[in-house]
Amino acid sequence: MSFDVSTLVYDERGLIPVIAQDEVDGAVLMMAWMNAEAVEKTLETGRVTYWSRSRQAFWVKGESSGHVQELVDLRIDCDGDALLVIVRQTGPACHTNRRSCFYTAVREGDAVEIMAPVA
Amino acid sequence: MSFDVSTLVYDERGLIPVIAQDEVDGAVLMMAWMNAEAVEKTLETGRVTYWSRSRQAFWVKGESSGHVQELVDLRIDCDGDALLVIVRQTGPACHTNRRSCFYTAVREGDAVEIMAPVA
Repeated sequence: MSFDVSTLVYDERGLIPVIAQDEVDGAVLMMAWMNAEAVEKTLETGRVTYWSRSRQAFWVKGESSGHVQELVDLRIDCDGDALLVIVRQTGPACHTNRRSCFYTAVREGDAVEIMAPVA
Repeated sequence: MSFDVSTLVYDERGLIPVIAQDEVDGAVLMMAWMNAEAVEKTLETGRVTYWSRSRQAFWVKGESSGHVQELVDLRIDCDGDALLVIVRQTGPACHTNRRSCFYTAVREGDAVEIMAPVA
């Protein structure tokens, strides 16, 4: 079945949430958003391209930092309203220089940092 | 630092996206939504509890199917606007009886099923 980005379910802003997962060990690296054109660009170029809600512009991940995400596989959930991209990540995924954006855990009622920035 | 659910960033509907990941092998199982009260319930009960956008009601995962998610760890991303729950999953996570909701991949322009329902 040929894939058409228009078959995905976008929210009222025209966006779909995207989870990025490391191909090597399955670590969840980040969550961001794409619009239909960003999904197309990601598939066409093999470079994961989000839509920046703050800048209202395409965001080719790593374009300025060099911490690019090469697309390994793109997956769609059962409702067609969320995407999972399996990526080959160069450098840390998080802008704080940590490997993953999910570096804070809630443990016994406290928010604790569980991951240090990459040296 | 004591954790307060009001410090999370919710969208205009009062919701935050939540990624569920299997504690055993790191598989991404599903993506759903919580409001502040669902985050609190999840932390208090140890049973992952989402907010159902279609039913506009709390959704204790597995309450009817038995396919519950026991909370192992709750993580917050750098912007405080996405959550990752590491879970001990009983049975398949997807309502289609597949282990993960992300069972469709886009390969060479085609949407292909890569995961069969659990027998």
